[in-house]
Amino acid sequence: MELLKKKILEEGRVAPGGILKVDGFLNHRVDIALCNEIGKEFRRIFPEKNINKILTMEASGIGIACIAAQYFDNVPVVYAKKSASKNIDGEVYVSEVESYTRGNTNKVIVSKRYLSKEDNILIIDDFLAKGKALMGLIEIIKQADANIVGAGIVIEKGFQSGGKIIRDMGIRLESLAIIENMSENSLTFRE
Amino acid sequence: MELLKKKILEEGRVAPGGILKVDGFLNHRVDIALCNEIGKEFRRIFPEKNINKILTMEASGIGIACIAAQYFDNVPVVYAKKSASKNIDGEVYVSEVESYTRGNTNKVIVSKRYLSKEDNILIIDDFLAKGKALMGLIEIIKQADANIVGAGIVIEKGFQSGGKIIRDMGIRLESLAIIENMSENSLTFRE
Repeated sequence: MELLKKKILEEGRVAPGGILKVDGFLNHRVDIALCNEIGKEFRRIFPEKNINKILTMEASGIGIACIAAQYFDNVPVVYAKKSASKNIDGEVYVSEVESYTRGNTNKVIVSKRYLSKEDNILIIDDFLAKGKALMGLIEIIKQADANIVGAGIVIEKGFQSGGKIIRDMGIRLESLAIIENMSENSLTFRE
Repeated sequence: MELLKKKILEEGRVAPGGILKVDGFLNHRVDIALCNEIGKEFRRIFPEKNINKILTMEASGIGIACIAAQYFDNVPVVYAKKSASKNIDGEVYVSEVESYTRGNTNKVIVSKRYLSKEDNILIIDDFLAKGKALMGLIEIIKQADANIVGAGIVIEKGFQSGGKIIRDMGIRLESLAIIENMSENSLTFRE
């Protein structure tokens, strides 16, 4: 997605530790017009009529998923929560997710009320690196015995292992920008 | 907002401990069409042309704020983050927020890159009870020396102290549904 790649080149920053910082438009300050273009692009890539739910991970996936859902006939967005809150009761699906950027492991949960085996789910998330968050969401969908239509990722770090692992699982994974190499001075995309 | 009140009456549940659970449409499974109506209503209430940014709190404010921003000429949404992540570097505004539903206290932070004294900010959040989250956001805006146009809340618990405290501070606070009383068997709105 050219608009996204342009934005990454113009406004992204590579911080020490191999972290690509796109908090100016994606995951702290959110560019709403860009999210709409991202949503349209996900719809173009995933035209399947049976998608009836979008699943994402709090917090940084939520804005993108909610805007994108408007291009999927306003299907509901369910977001996995990172820790047990008093606000979720009853039965939940649970998986463990290691966070690359936070350096810890979280339980992520989804209420059983909101995922079922009748669902055809598109996963949307902002980043894919080692794939831990995405694998956590896939695990939850499997627990629900629901169908995974595919996973739409905004930015994939192609030089990390997550993309290959997920694709090797047979999941249809589509990333709008795949970074082939990056350093503090340069960043190139996979063609 | 009648549509919202109807939704709360039909799908909200009051759990032990005085917690109103609206996770079926607002803060776990998100009803995108409803969020659009909420966004339109916030715009009707806050028609000010100078609003150039929406500030909210992760995680449950993000979806609502991002959808609403589309009715405010796609102004950017900035969300305060609940704990220091490797993904935020540099200078930040910080406030402490006690969470009613999680039973703990978090530091919430906003990068100084994304709030400045030129900003005219509308705060949007899903819930107002004791007002701790909202006061945290106001504190951050004050640190940035920015202008608070007002605060738009989806659901206010009118029987708790937050609304009065915030309004007594001179902040223009508008809630789309104010709950006057609730128990496990009944729920009434303020007229």
